[in-house]
Amino acid sequence: MTVHERYADPAARLGVANDTIALQLAHRSVRRFTDRPVSDDELYAIVAAAQSAATSSNLQAWSVVAVRDRARKARLAELAGGQAFIDQAPLFLVWVADLSRARRLAARAGARLDGADYLESTILGFVDTALAAQNAVVAAESLGLGTVFVGAIRNRPREVAAELGLPDHAVATFGLAVGTPDPTEDAGIKPRLPQDVVLHHEQYSDPAETDRLIEGYDAALEAYNTRHGLTGGWSDRVVGRLAGPESLSGRDKLRDELAHLGWPSR
Amino acid sequence: MTVHERYADPAARLGVANDTIALQLAHRSVRRFTDRPVSDDELYAIVAAAQSAATSSNLQAWSVVAVRDRARKARLAELAGGQAFIDQAPLFLVWVADLSRARRLAARAGARLDGADYLESTILGFVDTALAAQNAVVAAESLGLGTVFVGAIRNRPREVAAELGLPDHAVATFGLAVGTPDPTEDAGIKPRLPQDVVLHHEQYSDPAETDRLIEGYDAALEAYNTRHGLTGGWSDRVVGRLAGPESLSGRDKLRDELAHLGWPSR
Repeated sequence: MTVHERYADPAARLGVANDTIALQLAHRSVRRFTDRPVSDDELYAIVAAAQSAATSSNLQAWSVVAVRDRARKARLAELAGGQAFIDQAPLFLVWVADLSRARRLAARAGARLDGADYLESTILGFVDTALAAQNAVVAAESLGLGTVFVGAIRNRPREVAAELGLPDHAVATFGLAVGTPDPTEDAGIKPRLPQDVVLHHEQYSDPAETDRLIEGYDAALEAYNTRHGLTGGWSDRVVGRLAGPESLSGRDKLRDELAHLGWPSR
Repeated sequence: MTVHERYADPAARLGVANDTIALQLAHRSVRRFTDRPVSDDELYAIVAAAQSAATSSNLQAWSVVAVRDRARKARLAELAGGQAFIDQAPLFLVWVADLSRARRLAARAGARLDGADYLESTILGFVDTALAAQNAVVAAESLGLGTVFVGAIRNRPREVAAELGLPDHAVATFGLAVGTPDPTEDAGIKPRLPQDVVLHHEQYSDPAETDRLIEGYDAALEAYNTRHGLTGGWSDRVVGRLAGPESLSGRDKLRDELAHLGWPSR
């Protein structure tokens, strides 16, 4: 049962379930795709699902750029740290936090839009975009497609903006490679932290209690990684990933980059 | 057909569809609930779906606090601008961007975690949390539950953190009221922008072209609002919502508040 794999726990069980939840639990990152294109009808349905997600005050503060051109995908792959699967995926969606529409509406009305200058509005843009993108992932997987997110699209935001012709006040938040999963790829359901570590009741649980559960998870993830040709548990990887500015792949400059793109994030 | 309502366009059609996408397209905000509680089994399945969403580098930089206690819900409702439906919902989930686990792991290992101080890591925390929360919404709706997001939980972050006993390096990103929809509520499928406004191909579309489509949307949304006892179209509301710091309900101070909670966002 999928929930066993999700929690690396043969005792895990779902007391309620249905096809949608089963689909969600079976999520895995797919980085190898067949040559089959993603059709316009599929793309339309995926974006309609994305637009159906909640959005703060109905601002709809996002856009998405669908990239299929091989040369452009190759350039984006290069800008995102040389990840070959971007090039190989038939469709690469670049999700864009977008207040450019609001800025133009205000300019035309001769109105202020100073609220857009605050960190709150940057956060709102990224959150709106993420809610939409996750709905897109669920819709894509319901159609038998596979996906993987690409945070590395934030490594060089100004160059990505230039490649995509983004207006001021629009910034690429993350990419999403989409295609038909290549059945030969060894892509598994990655175990997550025990639910008691992330789900708290009424107030945040005592960290001394929940941190103890992380030791078991470290062992489970190391076993999973070994089976998939990787090494290490969870704790080592987390600490390494956030050690310092040098481990952020250029994203330590995100604050400056955002300001240049019209998101001062005061 | 739901896609007609979603785009306020009787000519809109889906070339591919299935039950999951139909469920997503039918999303609406629910703010009135019956007395039926959300069961532990339902909560477990909802959080399992949330944990199955993608997470940057598997950092799982989020937690969720499930609040059912009536007095605590009332206090949170007050902190979030007095929104009565928070109090009335049987379950209020507070979604928390959480790097406190990573901070403790690093401290125990005597390792640096300076990467967590950057705006990139704040963004990562909010995005991870939003991806998880959107999966929770889809799972909840698949179980016949209704939801509404509450961004106003960011109005007073330090007081919310105190109420929930959050450790340093954890911050409430948004709330989610969950319950069985009261069938007497007049909650409709809100029309969204035409897809051609948000979906771009290869490069960002000419804003002069797409802005023209917003005029039609303004009229459609005004008609929808009138049917639901509200007033105004889209453009006016967007500009009013972001006019200045005074229109952010205290969230113009989010940058300072985050710094106090251990997210310097450099």
